[in-house]
Amino acid sequence: MPPSAKAGLVDALAQALDRTRISSAACDRTAYARDLWPRGLIGVAHGDAAPQPPDVVVWPETTAEVAAIVKVAAARGVPVVAFGAGSGVTGGTWPTRGGIVLDLKRMNRFVELDGDALTAAFEAGIVGEHLEHELQRRGFTMGHFPSSIFCSTLGGWLAARSAGQASTRYGKIEDMVQGLEVVTGTGEVVRTGTSTVGPDWNQIFVGSEGTLGVITAATVRVARAPEVQLMRGWEFSHLAAGLEAIRRLLQRGLRPAFVRLYDELDTFIAHLGTSGPWRGRTGRRAPGPDGPLDELRRTALSLAIPHVGPLARLALGLFDRVSPSGCLLVLGYEGDGALCAAEEQIGNTELLHAGGRDLGPAPGLRWLEHRYDISYQQSHVFHDGAFVDTMEVATTWDHLLEMYEAVKRAVSRHAMVMAHFSHAYPEGCSIYFTFVGGSPARREAERIYDACWHDGLHAALNASGTLSHHHGVGLSKAGFMQEHHGELMTMLRGLKRVLDPAGIMNPGKLGLP
Amino acid sequence: MPPSAKAGLVDALAQALDRTRISSAACDRTAYARDLWPRGLIGVAHGDAAPQPPDVVVWPETTAEVAAIVKVAAARGVPVVAFGAGSGVTGGTWPTRGGIVLDLKRMNRFVELDGDALTAAFEAGIVGEHLEHELQRRGFTMGHFPSSIFCSTLGGWLAARSAGQASTRYGKIEDMVQGLEVVTGTGEVVRTGTSTVGPDWNQIFVGSEGTLGVITAATVRVARAPEVQLMRGWEFSHLAAGLEAIRRLLQRGLRPAFVRLYDELDTFIAHLGTSGPWRGRTGRRAPGPDGPLDELRRTALSLAIPHVGPLARLALGLFDRVSPSGCLLVLGYEGDGALCAAEEQIGNTELLHAGGRDLGPAPGLRWLEHRYDISYQQSHVFHDGAFVDTMEVATTWDHLLEMYEAVKRAVSRHAMVMAHFSHAYPEGCSIYFTFVGGSPARREAERIYDACWHDGLHAALNASGTLSHHHGVGLSKAGFMQEHHGELMTMLRGLKRVLDPAGIMNPGKLGLP
Repeated sequence: MPPSAKAGLVDALAQALDRTRISSAACDRTAYARDLWPRGLIGVAHGDAAPQPPDVVVWPETTAEVAAIVKVAAARGVPVVAFGAGSGVTGGTWPTRGGIVLDLKRMNRFVELDGDALTAAFEAGIVGEHLEHELQRRGFTMGHFPSSIFCSTLGGWLAARSAGQASTRYGKIEDMVQGLEVVTGTGEVVRTGTSTVGPDWNQIFVGSEGTLGVITAATVRVARAPEVQLMRGWEFSHLAAGLEAIRRLLQRGLRPAFVRLYDELDTFIAHLGTSGPWRGRTGRRAPGPDGPLDELRRTALSLAIPHVGPLARLALGLFDRVSPSGCLLVLGYEGDGALCAAEEQIGNTELLHAGGRDLGPAPGLRWLEHRYDISYQQSHVFHDGAFVDTMEVATTWDHLLEMYEAVKRAVSRHAMVMAHFSHAYPEGCSIYFTFVGGSPARREAERIYDACWHDGLHAALNASGTLSHHHGVGLSKAGFMQEHHGELMTMLRGLKRVLDPAGIMNPGKLGLP
Repeated sequence: MPPSAKAGLVDALAQALDRTRISSAACDRTAYARDLWPRGLIGVAHGDAAPQPPDVVVWPETTAEVAAIVKVAAARGVPVVAFGAGSGVTGGTWPTRGGIVLDLKRMNRFVELDGDALTAAFEAGIVGEHLEHELQRRGFTMGHFPSSIFCSTLGGWLAARSAGQASTRYGKIEDMVQGLEVVTGTGEVVRTGTSTVGPDWNQIFVGSEGTLGVITAATVRVARAPEVQLMRGWEFSHLAAGLEAIRRLLQRGLRPAFVRLYDELDTFIAHLGTSGPWRGRTGRRAPGPDGPLDELRRTALSLAIPHVGPLARLALGLFDRVSPSGCLLVLGYEGDGALCAAEEQIGNTELLHAGGRDLGPAPGLRWLEHRYDISYQQSHVFHDGAFVDTMEVATTWDHLLEMYEAVKRAVSRHAMVMAHFSHAYPEGCSIYFTFVGGSPARREAERIYDACWHDGLHAALNASGTLSHHHGVGLSKAGFMQEHHGELMTMLRGLKRVLDPAGIMNPGKLGLP
């Protein structure tokens, strides 16, 4: 945007909110130029911190201010990118065409709690940890615990269809939403609710990733703070046995909060890194979605970055032959004391019957303790010229092992890959692949990175998988949307024309123009 | 439509499907001119069977035929009304502007069952009882038991956001849907799925009542056929105690399948009509949503039709003073044997603690036995010049008693009204009001009928209630949509322009043009 146009834009925005909450300073533009999309972090490691910065950053404090900002933007055809806490991993807030980044973190108020109906309302910019604190000090919980809870917001969760670590019990964010306040691309304010007639408008905006409007407030379902948390670790000799046990347990109607099954490599690395905590001894680290990453870093570096791909394949091949350990399952119930005790007892019978070895409560308790350790830290592997990313895809039980094998095979051609199975449901489960690769040369690292995603996602889709379970689409998977959604993209473009006729809302994301 | 235009339409349709499955015969046009909307039945009782018949009725057998039919209609601007089994009670399939009624009952195939993922696919025209039979003989259930199960279809359930009697455990139809095949208003075929990125398109079409497209097939979640059904009746001294007990029980995390609390009058009439079955003696009828209607008919007639309103008020006033009985709660668990036993034990403790008196299994078992007795029969009260209808509204627990009192007060100015509370959830509950009124004069009967709905629904909306919990909007509540949904109607009209640019899909329903 030329300087004169930018000055005009700032002046126009100053009609909508105080000038102290509008910035076109270089430092702010750089700070808001990206999120934690690992492909971007490869660039950052090479000094490219702000590939396409926004022209202006604004910090509204009310929905009326957001509406006024969007109206200014719509009149001028300037892009608007809603921004929460910036921990997204898909490039969903990259201002690829410049324009306005709208930081919602000043809209972070706890609005109200209805303890009878078990609902609570918040402004969308509240950080997850603060939201949960507001609820817990009143004796409630949202039950939504993404590993990013310290650095992600309610609005971001809703926009990207987030899932927390306890989604087996409490559901994903789309199951929790009871109502939204949204500023659409025309600057109109709409309020959805729990009406049970006509289309469910909540489900139009959840997952829309800022392309149809800006979510400014939400009412969500909450639960009473759990009386108990019953955690337990289990060992299975192989993955299929563990998965079958989980499927049977959930399909009996049991609803554990936490269900996490680590594949052999993930289990092995967790075991290495912890001096075997899940075997009952004391360890300094717990296995978790990112827990093994520091260990992996050591492994990856020892393999020497330029050769990480071939060496990883070699190591993996060796590992597959000598695979020393089984698979760790962490399973936990939380909620009503009597009900959880009954559920755990029934569940234990099922797991023993399926060949599980009871490891007692220690592995689960340690996982609980460390479950947020990683997401708000920047992984060091990027400084060392490598990259680490996670691919969270999901499918139904009948396709799960097939998808696991296919994605592992596809990605391991380019990087070291391991996985755990979490977010389990009666009909299926998500697989959380972690992969590490790299090259000292930026373009080569990016090529390898893109190859991991290209081959991995196609393998997942070919095995009836989804594009993403809870990280969203953003830029990283935008190129897959037409292939994956076909005719639905025609409808989505039509819906966008209705809600965002000027085409200014987070352009380029979710496969939309 | 003039005869020449109709002949041209039939010829054009004959390009899409065999002429033997196209009819413009008077008998077919009359048969498809209405559903079971009670307001229409008042007219029928006065000899007006087909207020606005369709011009043509078609019976497609494939999705391709449906698409071709819709394309013919779109090209000519002729309305298309999808029709299942005709048991709707809102006028949702009334062809108010003539055109084509598209009966889907020949598209009634069981497509496939995935016993691992617990999903099943069917064509949309399958009647509920047949669908459940296909599943049960394979050892599964959909868990969806509307009282209309003998005379309603899967497509109708989805179009109108149906709830079954066990929705507390299995969810409403919108919770079960995993994928849809839909022919939109342009004749395009779109397939939605369980993708977890972007908006959830299933939730656009569920509840759209045929105004955006025709649902031709669906994949739904199923469950294993229950090992046990543990039914039990409870007596509470007053409504508030029973409601509080249900709320506490559900908010502890228990998931009974059946939860039905009858108000004093509904309990009393059930008791009268059954020689007190819920007190443990043998009775020929069970209380249920429609079970007491034959008894009510006797009561209503004894009050003399011309005076039913004032006399009902008088009777109700007397009843309120002498109210002899408490409130009956029927509660039942079904599913895994061990889990249900544990849940029942915990639940019983809660109900006893809340002041409930255990009536043993008999009331629940009798309700189970008779739960479909009524819906497929035409109530006799219409022949006698009266009407009977049900108003199913829902709200959160904190507004529930307020809504109950407000609606009862509003409707009882015009008719006799009673209610039960069913479809209970952790956040709230539905109230199912049954009201009987009438006049020998058709216009006066219709005026009273309209007044019941006008005053009753406004009372519900003012008490934070919804327009409908599971019967849908159709024509009967179309006039309330703008007031109730405001800005969302603007979005809905926009969405309709995208999916049905010719404006031919079930015009006039859901508050749309």
